[in-house]
Amino acid sequence: MSEAPKAALPPGLAHGRPKGEQLQEILEAYIASLSPGDLLPSERALSNHYGVARMTVRQEIERLAAKGIVSRMHGRGTFVAEPKFVQSARLTSFSEDMRARGMTPGSSVLERSMLPANEFVASHLEVDTDTPVVKIDRVRSADGEPMAFERAYLPSARFPGLETEDLAGGSLYELLRERWGVVVESADQIVTGVALSADEAELLGTTEHQPAFLIQRTTRDAGGLVIEYVRSLYRTDRYDIQIPLKRGDRP
Amino acid sequence: MSEAPKAALPPGLAHGRPKGEQLQEILEAYIASLSPGDLLPSERALSNHYGVARMTVRQEIERLAAKGIVSRMHGRGTFVAEPKFVQSARLTSFSEDMRARGMTPGSSVLERSMLPANEFVASHLEVDTDTPVVKIDRVRSADGEPMAFERAYLPSARFPGLETEDLAGGSLYELLRERWGVVVESADQIVTGVALSADEAELLGTTEHQPAFLIQRTTRDAGGLVIEYVRSLYRTDRYDIQIPLKRGDRP
Repeated sequence: MSEAPKAALPPGLAHGRPKGEQLQEILEAYIASLSPGDLLPSERALSNHYGVARMTVRQEIERLAAKGIVSRMHGRGTFVAEPKFVQSARLTSFSEDMRARGMTPGSSVLERSMLPANEFVASHLEVDTDTPVVKIDRVRSADGEPMAFERAYLPSARFPGLETEDLAGGSLYELLRERWGVVVESADQIVTGVALSADEAELLGTTEHQPAFLIQRTTRDAGGLVIEYVRSLYRTDRYDIQIPLKRGDRP
Repeated sequence: MSEAPKAALPPGLAHGRPKGEQLQEILEAYIASLSPGDLLPSERALSNHYGVARMTVRQEIERLAAKGIVSRMHGRGTFVAEPKFVQSARLTSFSEDMRARGMTPGSSVLERSMLPANEFVASHLEVDTDTPVVKIDRVRSADGEPMAFERAYLPSARFPGLETEDLAGGSLYELLRERWGVVVESADQIVTGVALSADEAELLGTTEHQPAFLIQRTTRDAGGLVIEYVRSLYRTDRYDIQIPLKRGDRP
């Protein structure tokens, strides 16, 4: 009984199109009709139902898992995943985002240090090379599960004592406002896609080569001064980014 | 002489921090001071200069290549890459984007067909299941180089004859406007990160497991009717996504 799907599987594959591609479409549509936590039919059952090799089924299930649509639990089967976190175009802190979802945000601070800005960091912070900056490495979590690795650089002169602040569980933006009266107003983000290294994957509780977003964020106050430059890695199996687009004035 | 860098390499590594991490920061800062096409010092030269293993250097160079910061040419060395394409939050067509950069947009149409919408496609197009839709698979290119694979679904009733139109080299949005008077007004995009399959990588002229953006776009006209649902794969070594963020009304 544990293999009985809640909804009937759609009928078989059409001729003339790649089997993997069809299977992926069918499974995505089928999963959309299920609820988070529902059990998927076994690889064997899918292989029999669609007359495709077990390997093809496994490959497509792995791709769904990499996209965060299903999660595989060893020895228990494959389940419909919880909906992914969606980052919107509104500037919010990680802590705010998680609380808005009813989850408990957490931070594990891996490193806090003061160091002279190299050229790269200095240009992003719009300060001179060798200006003292505070570097903060954190793993951000939601209900205890790692979601992102963040490396933030802030100009030290503006936030004296920041390098000794306790940031575990708290929002950096709240701290900046409460202690130094600095309010985050706008940010520019550049998003790219990377494959996680073994070290990064370990920090994020996932496996090497798992795709991730590398998000570079420059945050400014109302006067346009740079507050921080942040490089974050977000697990793409847990996070999507939403972008609303509006037509501009070009024809 | 071919190994002589244009600018002097920054000095050596500090103690107490992982060598790979330091090397990555140093190389990114160093590359920022060079121009596209400039040759990087060889792996051997970097390995000697920084006193780290060749393997460590190679690993960091590979990571820079995966991010699109450098490109490696077999037997010739590693070069500073051309700046990446940045997708902004303005709704433009791929063809417009490329022309604005002075490049020639191209399309290779892999498939055009009419088929009944499955549940997944139907829900995105906001039509009933089994409604006839036109499916268009294209590889989009810039100056002949593949940049993205796009799979678009459009409701057939609204665009009769679309499945036989010649789309090579042209903009679908221009065609929709000229032939059916339909103007693209807004879109919602959801971006996730995936690793390319062998087939996808071949279409995009890159290698398996290379990270890519999977962008799902739903495009609407001024009346809010869905025009198309598109799933695109963009090479993240050639494409970044820029997201400006503004503080909302939450504290």
